[in-house]
Amino acid sequence: MTYCLGISTREGLVFVSDSRTNAGVDHINTYSKMHVFKHEHRFLVLLASGNLATTQGVVAHVERDLREHSHISLNTVSTLDEAAEYIGGISVSEQNKHANKRLEKDFRPEASFILGGQLKQDPPGLIHVYPEGNFVHASSSTPYLQVGEVKYGKPILDRIVEDETTLSSAVMCGLVSMDSTMRSSAVVGPPIEYLVYLKDSYASAIHRSLDEDNEYLLMLRRMWSENLREAFKALPDAPGLDLLQGQSIAEILKL
Amino acid sequence: MTYCLGISTREGLVFVSDSRTNAGVDHINTYSKMHVFKHEHRFLVLLASGNLATTQGVVAHVERDLREHSHISLNTVSTLDEAAEYIGGISVSEQNKHANKRLEKDFRPEASFILGGQLKQDPPGLIHVYPEGNFVHASSSTPYLQVGEVKYGKPILDRIVEDETTLSSAVMCGLVSMDSTMRSSAVVGPPIEYLVYLKDSYASAIHRSLDEDNEYLLMLRRMWSENLREAFKALPDAPGLDLLQGQSIAEILKL
Repeated sequence: MTYCLGISTREGLVFVSDSRTNAGVDHINTYSKMHVFKHEHRFLVLLASGNLATTQGVVAHVERDLREHSHISLNTVSTLDEAAEYIGGISVSEQNKHANKRLEKDFRPEASFILGGQLKQDPPGLIHVYPEGNFVHASSSTPYLQVGEVKYGKPILDRIVEDETTLSSAVMCGLVSMDSTMRSSAVVGPPIEYLVYLKDSYASAIHRSLDEDNEYLLMLRRMWSENLREAFKALPDAPGLDLLQGQSIAEILKL
Repeated sequence: MTYCLGISTREGLVFVSDSRTNAGVDHINTYSKMHVFKHEHRFLVLLASGNLATTQGVVAHVERDLREHSHISLNTVSTLDEAAEYIGGISVSEQNKHANKRLEKDFRPEASFILGGQLKQDPPGLIHVYPEGNFVHASSSTPYLQVGEVKYGKPILDRIVEDETTLSSAVMCGLVSMDSTMRSSAVVGPPIEYLVYLKDSYASAIHRSLDEDNEYLLMLRRMWSENLREAFKALPDAPGLDLLQGQSIAEILKL
């Protein structure tokens, strides 16, 4: 599995991804899922989730089109929508190459992508490309997009990320969301990559990869657990819990 | 959908369940999913998740067996394992009654259950009954069980619940886990029920149902959001984020 997310803020974009891939529980590997394409006034980040053969095939195809100066490539598309349409088309054709070719019926090597960045004078944008090749944009009311193992890390995003979130907060929230996911799911794992794109910069402001033993990652995990426990302890007791304080079972059951 | 959880502590058991059922997004209803069976030195709680026709069929069957003093019922089984086997058997036969009877192939009206309580001199126990009728126990290293929409609320359980958790903490953690799930998923909703069972009491110490407008539930949601935000703000910045503070884009990109 995989967990990738993109967050759109007024100042720019944030991308976070894990690096674990698995085909069954005993075939676990490490691959970066964050791919950066940069050329003059074009800056694009592609986060890939799903069947690894499909996502590698898509990235290889995209890179070949760039290398061979193809008629259509990430250097020729003129809007982010066109870029998403291009990625979606390649993804569908990669999937169809291998789908249902053997005895396993319903074998569908699906892949999903988050595509974000800025092309020339357009504002920065963030898009979720579905396995079917169609896509949706992030918006001010839905400023983040996720692919892969998305549920464990969603509650913290829902509480922190909003239209006015700063880039720093967005990075921190992405890392906490990733940490929660790694804590609860074995199919998402380090290294954790994050990239910050500042509006109108056409370059990465920050692009880091933190491995399993990274001191900051270990500290974040420990401090977030401690802070959560403190936040939890400070909650007021639920109705009825006062009955459990300092009374014997016999007394409680008489009430 | 549904979200139900049970937590086993040294002092007893905690059960929490939502009340939303949905068959498609435009067919949403409210049903309690917490069923209590109590008779002399027997106390059992059944939390039901999955196809509503199946879960209602199972509960009706269990109640009929009790009413008619059947050869096997929750009043005749002598261990919690026997009770789980009995529930699992009824569940499988309810599912098989309706599976694949019409044109839709692969229609499987599945249901899962959490069964917990105490029978006579045995210690209290907590069991997850799968749609196939087989089951697993909670243990000191896995003190909680979930059924339904389980992922959103798992990170907080993983961080708070352990073998030595008090009953009060277990209730609070169950409610926070439920709140996180309701916040991020439209298929889990109030009223929220919780029940506390004290070891060797053979009765509910606390059994409450909090509806949508319940003041405590609203306060819990607000305070947990606030506390989480504070906990989040107190985290140390990720590597590189210092670059974003008080510098112009030009300066950052030069670095």
